[in-house]
Amino acid sequence: MQTFTATRISIIAERLIQDGVVRIMEEAGATGYSFFEGGGKGGHGFHPTHRPSIVEDFAIVKIEAIVSSRAVAEQIAEQVAAAYFGDQSAVMYLHEVEVLRPEKF
Amino acid sequence: MQTFTATRISIIAERLIQDGVVRIMEEAGATGYSFFEGGGKGGHGFHPTHRPSIVEDFAIVKIEAIVSSRAVAEQIAEQVAAAYFGDQSAVMYLHEVEVLRPEKF
Amino acid sequence: MQTFTATRISIIAERLIQDGVVRIMEEAGATGYSFFEGGGKGGHGFHPTHRPSIVEDFAIVKIEAIVSSRAVAEQIAEQVAAAYFGDQSAVMYLHEVEVLRPEKF
Repeated sequence: MQTFTATRISIIAERLIQDGVVRIMEEAGATGYSFFEGGGKGGHGFHPTHRPSIVEDFAIVKIEAIVSSRAVAEQIAEQVAAAYFGDQSAVMYLHEVEVLRPEKF
Repeated sequence: MQTFTATRISIIAERLIQDGVVRIMEEAGATGYSFFEGGGKGGHGFHPTHRPSIVEDFAIVKIEAIVSSRAVAEQIAEQVAAAYFGDQSAVMYLHEVEVLRPEKF
Repeated sequence: MQTFTATRISIIAERLIQDGVVRIMEEAGATGYSFFEGGGKGGHGFHPTHRPSIVEDFAIVKIEAIVSSRAVAEQIAEQVAAAYFGDQSAVMYLHEVEVLRPEKF
């Protein structure tokens, strides 16, 4: 089976930034994205400086995209960081994956 | 800590193909799977040719399995591609992970 | 773009162990975590020995954390394995990811 390397970029953040992250992804050239709602807590990006002694879980969303171009992945990462890392409201990670159809991403 | 390499295979697609994907995974020898409902949009596999100027998010599901055998991972990938890539209804990626109990997968 | 290597650890398990897993993550030094509810089936950790011929999907949760220290990742993995692998109620995998701010994890 022949596979091709692509980059998966995932952002876990409060839901209010979802539209902004998606816009960055689309403008950078991602052909699509998906998102999954969940919860999270702690210094994982969610209000760590205002953390009370007992913290409620925050409603979060994981937004992810797969792009075949490393340059596109980096553009997304840099723009998300510039737009949303100041208020500590996002966790982001990248890793390589294998895909079968590179022209799709 | 001793770890072993396994392959994680993830398929993000419209929910209507979930049962078919799961059947392929089980017949290939995956010992289990998990799935997570979410949303998605764009050419990420979802009706790109009929995309209107304003697109609603589609309800999607991510189905994933971890298998210790690369051959099993490739069988799943090839069969999912053969069954569901024709209508652009699936995104699929694979990557290596570390697990503690290879006999479990 | 400069990135740093971190470890993503994911546990997919029945929801009843979520609080215990989170406690292990926090005590090991993870600065945060996130979780996503879903479903799963089969020997993927869910009651394989009592599997009837037709199995209902189980409600599960994926709990994940990103840590910059490999030692912290291993401590989490070993403690989750010690606490929850005996009853086959958890699937766990680790893999490396790239992050932009290592001091955050």
